Amino acid sequence: MDTYKTIVTKRDSRSFTEQAIPEETVRRIVQAGRMAGSSKNVQPCRFVIIQDPEQKAAIAKCGDFAAWIPTAPLIVAVALTDVGTRGEFDAGRAAQNMMIAAWSEDLGSCPISMHHVECARDTLGLPEAWRVCIVVAFGYKSKPQQSIPQAARLPWDEYVRRDRW
Amino acid sequence: MDTYKTIVTKRDSRSFTEQAIPEETVRRIVQAGRMAGSSKNVQPCRFVIIQDPEQKAAIAKCGDFAAWIPTAPLIVAVALTDVGTRGEFDAGRAAQNMMIAAWSEDLGSCPISMHHVECARDTLGLPEAWRVCIVVAFGYKSKPQQSIPQAARLPWDEYVRRDRW
Repeated sequence: MDTYKTIVTKRDSRSFTEQAIPEETVRRIVQAGRMAGSSKNVQPCRFVIIQDPEQKAAIAKCGDFAAWIPTAPLIVAVALTDVGTRGEFDAGRAAQNMMIAAWSEDLGSCPISMHHVECARDTLGLPEAWRVCIVVAFGYKSKPQQSIPQAARLPWDEYVRRDRW
Repeated sequence: MDTYKTIVTKRDSRSFTEQAIPEETVRRIVQAGRMAGSSKNVQPCRFVIIQDPEQKAAIAKCGDFAAWIPTAPLIVAVALTDVGTRGEFDAGRAAQNMMIAAWSEDLGSCPISMHHVECARDTLGLPEAWRVCIVVAFGYKSKPQQSIPQAARLPWDEYVRRDRW
């Protein structure tokens, strides 16, 4: 799909088919995240690909709204360490790269917060200086692209200003 | 350009030609940012398109490494308010959407921190609850795509784990 169209049609979604994701697609998604830029190229993120059913069930318990995520055929946890000054921002860049790459191959996705920080760190066995910034669930879209309406956004003139607020 | 190729070839760059950016391209870039998802769709970001030379010069003084940014034909400031719990992460998603959309049209970009928070807020006239999370400079690439090497990243096995760290 054309890049611009991919970007502007992307919806965060939690409803996936059970279709398995080929390994080469998983690797493209993660590679898209790995190639995201970061402040001074400090690369503050690491990715944990979660496909083991027990690990999916365990990580699902670490977020207040994450009970559904084991239905996703692929979960990627974004681990973050505070080596830079823009960690969360850079994690957002990496996660968006993964979600856009996935959408271009007909996979939906949704980021999920891990409210219970120690739970997530312990489940994934992260070193002390690392935490789970976000978890992203991926799966093939359960609805055809044509049936997905544009996302609701505030009006352009409220969203966008010229030269000053 | 194909979406995946656009994403993985994108480099953060600060060297642009002086070529003006058509208004419809500016609008596509900003629209890409506007369509980025956010936690619970709280839409914590707003965008200020900066093209006025005086405003460019003024905002350049608000970051420790921003003196060069008036050379960019387009600057977009991402304003953020703390209505959600994932503001910086969501700002990263929006900024990455803009940068990927731009790259697909042959424009490079680079995010720049605004270290002097009050300077940036005053320059753009933001309301009290808002701050400039990041500024992104855009311009047509000064080098042909083929001459741009892949970005340096840590090895795959250091970046990516399976099921646990």
